[in-house]
Amino acid sequence: MPEINIALIGHQFMGKAHSNAYRQVRRFFPGNLVPRMKVICGKAPEKELSATARQFGWEEFDDEWERVVARKDIQVVDVSTPSFLHHPMVIAAAKAGKHIICEKPLANSVREAREMLRAVEKAGVLHYVNFNYRRVPAVAFAKRLIEDGRIGDAYHYHGAYLQDWIMDPNFPLVWRLEKKFAGSGALGDIGAHATDLATYLNGDISEVTGQMTTFITSRPLAGVGSGSWGAKGSKGKGKVTVDDETNFLARFKNGSAGVFESSRFGGGRRNYNTFQVYGSKGSLAFNMERMNELEFYDRTEDQSVQGFKTILVTEATHPYVGAWWPPGHIIGYEHTFVHAVHDFLTCLEKGRMPKPNFRDGVKNHVVLDAVERSTRIGRWQKIKI
Amino acid sequence: MPEINIALIGHQFMGKAHSNAYRQVRRFFPGNLVPRMKVICGKAPEKELSATARQFGWEEFDDEWERVVARKDIQVVDVSTPSFLHHPMVIAAAKAGKHIICEKPLANSVREAREMLRAVEKAGVLHYVNFNYRRVPAVAFAKRLIEDGRIGDAYHYHGAYLQDWIMDPNFPLVWRLEKKFAGSGALGDIGAHATDLATYLNGDISEVTGQMTTFITSRPLAGVGSGSWGAKGSKGKGKVTVDDETNFLARFKNGSAGVFESSRFGGGRRNYNTFQVYGSKGSLAFNMERMNELEFYDRTEDQSVQGFKTILVTEATHPYVGAWWPPGHIIGYEHTFVHAVHDFLTCLEKGRMPKPNFRDGVKNHVVLDAVERSTRIGRWQKIKI
Amino acid sequence: MPEINIALIGHQFMGKAHSNAYRQVRRFFPGNLVPRMKVICGKAPEKELSATARQFGWEEFDDEWERVVARKDIQVVDVSTPSFLHHPMVIAAAKAGKHIICEKPLANSVREAREMLRAVEKAGVLHYVNFNYRRVPAVAFAKRLIEDGRIGDAYHYHGAYLQDWIMDPNFPLVWRLEKKFAGSGALGDIGAHATDLATYLNGDISEVTGQMTTFITSRPLAGVGSGSWGAKGSKGKGKVTVDDETNFLARFKNGSAGVFESSRFGGGRRNYNTFQVYGSKGSLAFNMERMNELEFYDRTEDQSVQGFKTILVTEATHPYVGAWWPPGHIIGYEHTFVHAVHDFLTCLEKGRMPKPNFRDGVKNHVVLDAVERSTRIGRWQKIKI
Amino acid sequence: MPEINIALIGHQFMGKAHSNAYRQVRRFFPGNLVPRMKVICGKAPEKELSATARQFGWEEFDDEWERVVARKDIQVVDVSTPSFLHHPMVIAAAKAGKHIICEKPLANSVREAREMLRAVEKAGVLHYVNFNYRRVPAVAFAKRLIEDGRIGDAYHYHGAYLQDWIMDPNFPLVWRLEKKFAGSGALGDIGAHATDLATYLNGDISEVTGQMTTFITSRPLAGVGSGSWGAKGSKGKGKVTVDDETNFLARFKNGSAGVFESSRFGGGRRNYNTFQVYGSKGSLAFNMERMNELEFYDRTEDQSVQGFKTILVTEATHPYVGAWWPPGHIIGYEHTFVHAVHDFLTCLEKGRMPKPNFRDGVKNHVVLDAVERSTRIGRWQKIKI
Repeated sequence: MPEINIALIGHQFMGKAHSNAYRQVRRFFPGNLVPRMKVICGKAPEKELSATARQFGWEEFDDEWERVVARKDIQVVDVSTPSFLHHPMVIAAAKAGKHIICEKPLANSVREAREMLRAVEKAGVLHYVNFNYRRVPAVAFAKRLIEDGRIGDAYHYHGAYLQDWIMDPNFPLVWRLEKKFAGSGALGDIGAHATDLATYLNGDISEVTGQMTTFITSRPLAGVGSGSWGAKGSKGKGKVTVDDETNFLARFKNGSAGVFESSRFGGGRRNYNTFQVYGSKGSLAFNMERMNELEFYDRTEDQSVQGFKTILVTEATHPYVGAWWPPGHIIGYEHTFVHAVHDFLTCLEKGRMPKPNFRDGVKNHVVLDAVERSTRIGRWQKIKI
Repeated sequence: MPEINIALIGHQFMGKAHSNAYRQVRRFFPGNLVPRMKVICGKAPEKELSATARQFGWEEFDDEWERVVARKDIQVVDVSTPSFLHHPMVIAAAKAGKHIICEKPLANSVREAREMLRAVEKAGVLHYVNFNYRRVPAVAFAKRLIEDGRIGDAYHYHGAYLQDWIMDPNFPLVWRLEKKFAGSGALGDIGAHATDLATYLNGDISEVTGQMTTFITSRPLAGVGSGSWGAKGSKGKGKVTVDDETNFLARFKNGSAGVFESSRFGGGRRNYNTFQVYGSKGSLAFNMERMNELEFYDRTEDQSVQGFKTILVTEATHPYVGAWWPPGHIIGYEHTFVHAVHDFLTCLEKGRMPKPNFRDGVKNHVVLDAVERSTRIGRWQKIKI
Repeated sequence: MPEINIALIGHQFMGKAHSNAYRQVRRFFPGNLVPRMKVICGKAPEKELSATARQFGWEEFDDEWERVVARKDIQVVDVSTPSFLHHPMVIAAAKAGKHIICEKPLANSVREAREMLRAVEKAGVLHYVNFNYRRVPAVAFAKRLIEDGRIGDAYHYHGAYLQDWIMDPNFPLVWRLEKKFAGSGALGDIGAHATDLATYLNGDISEVTGQMTTFITSRPLAGVGSGSWGAKGSKGKGKVTVDDETNFLARFKNGSAGVFESSRFGGGRRNYNTFQVYGSKGSLAFNMERMNELEFYDRTEDQSVQGFKTILVTEATHPYVGAWWPPGHIIGYEHTFVHAVHDFLTCLEKGRMPKPNFRDGVKNHVVLDAVERSTRIGRWQKIKI
Repeated sequence: MPEINIALIGHQFMGKAHSNAYRQVRRFFPGNLVPRMKVICGKAPEKELSATARQFGWEEFDDEWERVVARKDIQVVDVSTPSFLHHPMVIAAAKAGKHIICEKPLANSVREAREMLRAVEKAGVLHYVNFNYRRVPAVAFAKRLIEDGRIGDAYHYHGAYLQDWIMDPNFPLVWRLEKKFAGSGALGDIGAHATDLATYLNGDISEVTGQMTTFITSRPLAGVGSGSWGAKGSKGKGKVTVDDETNFLARFKNGSAGVFESSRFGGGRRNYNTFQVYGSKGSLAFNMERMNELEFYDRTEDQSVQGFKTILVTEATHPYVGAWWPPGHIIGYEHTFVHAVHDFLTCLEKGRMPKPNFRDGVKNHVVLDAVERSTRIGRWQKIKI
């Protein structure tokens, strides 16, 4: 069976999730193209990197990404670093003719994102941006129901993605809280996901107006190398330069109205990525903390038995999930990455462009950018793609 | 025991709910001041009105509100008509020196509302505007928890009030869908409730920006005398002049961010009046369709046992509910009106001004008005009370 | 309109709920026969009884039930006392030719129950035993779905009625904890309800085997006049002579299997009267703490959209509930009593025997009795009606 | 790092889950002892077996288990075949001095189970029986709360394990429906899990009485090689010789009462493995379909804020789960097997006997056997271990 060599840049949270995806994909989703976990690249002492490579299942490791993306034996470069590094890495990988998987958000600005898109298009490589929540079986099934006309004309879309991991004022100033590294805060991290899901399920957004807030404006400096969850502070204080929470209103091209919340101050909501869509024929509701369930309300049923139905999305007839376990045996967060890699490999095999790709990544940035601008000037902003 | 004579204007949905409240209040909430159901007033054929009076328990009936509000033997006038009638009735009742209970929204415009406030203040009567959801035990208990500091500093408030009773495009053009009668649509009907609850729980709103949408712009003309739910259409079509849905963003004076949805197109949501508040110490969530429950998340607990807790608000230690049945025996929608009347009578007895009163009603209108204006001009609007 | 004079015996918890039902029934359920609240009877000082009569809306009061049931002007006697008093009262009322409403359990033994049935049948009066949970709209709607064949052949029935009001070992020895007054504990109080609902929904039980447990065997003596919830203890200790919890297995005549739990030690379950029925075509689930909801699973739907659906049983098409408020505006515990009285009055008007009547009450006792016997001898017991 | 060679017998559903566990364990749970996936053994054509070995990650494959268990280079034999094959395989593996992991139920009878226990004890090897649900983080956390005294004295335990995969009368007569292969039906398959969880959480059972039912007594013969879920029928009909559903009552040694349901006819319940425990200080509730959540009710809290709390068991402070993803990022069914293998390897490294081991497996069989006997003779049966 043909093998395809993968290089993964990033060895923290996303590196772990992507590594697992490459290891697992062909165990559950047989296919002709088999990913070979060639090299992992990260900024860390050799000993640590070596241990990580071994634990995650990579043949080699390296701490120079420029060298890695230039390797002749690599066909796919997977960029799973903090977002401020995406731009140079992707540009270089594209120039080297590699197919590219890039974590979301695609970049830290619309400009960067557009340049990256131009680079991959010029290089003629496949490109994929990992809005992994599209690969939750319940979300993919929601999409299928929508395409089958089960909600009819959309009226109202509500997306709320709430987390609470930085509520403690003593939680340190990690890279995700600095604009120069993260581009934005809740908006680009989780709002990007909510926006992508909305676009996926309900189509393009034409106009937005937003509100960004930073509740804790100064935090202890982060210790060296600290990541996100559970990070410990160091001496001294620094300024938080991103939003703790961003909300916005939207109008969709299909005429429906949209309301979005994204917050890192939603106490008790650990990974509460949710949406509800209301249409002329039906409604849908989803919550990532119960990611194996989809709620569906069918307005075409006999009125006396109408109600929100909790579909346990674990049937062989549902997207992806038949490859795993029998009905009712639920799957978890990491599986979305496996599904993403599976779909990417299928595209690679068939020469098809993956979805969502950098075009979707750019579109996502344009919306986020409009939200930021609307907040700054206090007016609605049109989305121009 | 001293009796106090009540005149009720309005004999439809709200008339029914208010009548029940007067009948029931002293059965469950003993008190010195006893309401006497003197006269009900409505626009209907004598036979119908007479039957309604008998069924609802009123001694007399009348179809001329001017005559009723002028009666010497009446101490309290309860205005439960469609909102476009509130202004003249309240002004007249105030001039006649009556204490006033008025359904929400107080009026159809800020101007009207201010005039009504001036009138009652000039007359020196007690005035109450019936944002009845404040009298849900779970909501009053939420207020108590907030006042006790259980959520700490507020960060995020989300209020969503969704219904679905006009989703059928053949649902007729009832008065609630005409601006001249209703002032606005979802905004003034249910958005007003959501706004009032937010103000009650989270304090004043300082700024808003909104979005109003009408999905079905033309509807069959309504038959004469048709009310709201389950109304049937007549021949011909008319223009819908109010919003089917209004969403808005808000900033509160306490620094927290607010997101509001109010829609009559939320399929499957029958009376889904909900809120979530997130603060530095805890979070609260409520849904009127499960009005006996309050969800509470306590961030001060040991982390490993933190979680959203479903409190069944039916204990003797909870507001209002001890007067009804033993713990776990739930109450319903109509009880909120009984609690409102009970509180009003207590105020009357003690010579205290009820809450929420016309000042709150005006404040509510100012916010709704700012939402409308912000929608029209596409910019944030400051709230000036 | 013809009036019918009611005498109510019992002025505590049930007296309060029944009084409310008589007051409210014609306010919401118009009908030709109007109940007149003639006299309430209870064992209490005249001052207390007088106040109760006034508060509950009775014209007269009396403390001698023998006198009351013999009154010529009374047509209906409502027996809402503790169960050990039902037998003499019902026998006397029947002899006096009164129609009878009797609280559940019908009596304290099968023998008593059978004598009561014989008495009412001999007297030719209407008789009703108030298993009020049949009158929850969601329960009546479940019954309708079952009769419409929506669950198909029944396989499994689970009824669990849990409460927790006597978990504190210092909760006193109220009458419900003494066999001579209550007949049994959890079994007769709440297990009787669970058994009746099962019989109503799933047909007759043919065989049972049970398990009865008393966790706290000795308690503080109760103060004089203490009722149930929230009672305070007095000096000295007494022996608990009833079950704190009774569970049993059952076989139904229709071939399905049954599992029943009834406990007063279900911490956190305040009035958790629940059932699930599983059949060849569908499943149903109910919980009294969310009494306005019915969960329905339809196995005949397309497999990929099957799921438990939460039906908010507040539609005009649902039993009883259309008489109250618009869809989504929920009702409470007390409404079941109003529905019961409404049905009783309709029967009275049409000369029909109410359901459930004393035959059902006897049947219920026979099952409870078999559960007790099976526990004593450790073997299955056949039900012989 | 020392490696330990594993032989896995069984290549269907359980073989897939166990293979995944060996592959994944050291990716997420670092440890000194590393499992090497040496050989998988199954009854299948070479081509199929070879493909399975490759897909699941085994170095070799074999179709003769006798040969496999005798291999000198194997240290651990994992028996994941249908239960009727456990006895000979385990006996042979023990004689060959292998450490043993065996799927549940341990055997098809108490006699077999006892012989297996004797064999492993005589051989002095480590033995583990895979009641995998003990390794759900929420279940292990429930155990911790119980051990910490958070529920106090236990009063009531309810375990219900419902599935619905054989409800279609045309579902064929797979091996799980034949007594000679499966020992029993719902009882041994899922009732065994419910019983083990109860013993784990609430201690030993002293007495039981049961009820076993077969709803569909004759089914289409199964095609060759058909497994469980989604199997298709062949020509001809055969007799179902096991129970479709088994319920039983129990008394625990700690004085609490137990109620158990296990059914394959619980329509809409796909893998509904649930329990509730009620004690003097608190209550717990769990549902495997929402396996990342544990409900906890704390009776020691201030009464007005008591309520069932949904703990999302994904914190670093919770058992196992910190090794996976950040808080709120849920895991799935397969992870329980990874946790089991991790614990087994730790025991192997430290020379400790795993839990649950064959003693627990025997105990489980003794309870199931008593349930069967009690059903046959219609009386309670004491548990004698």
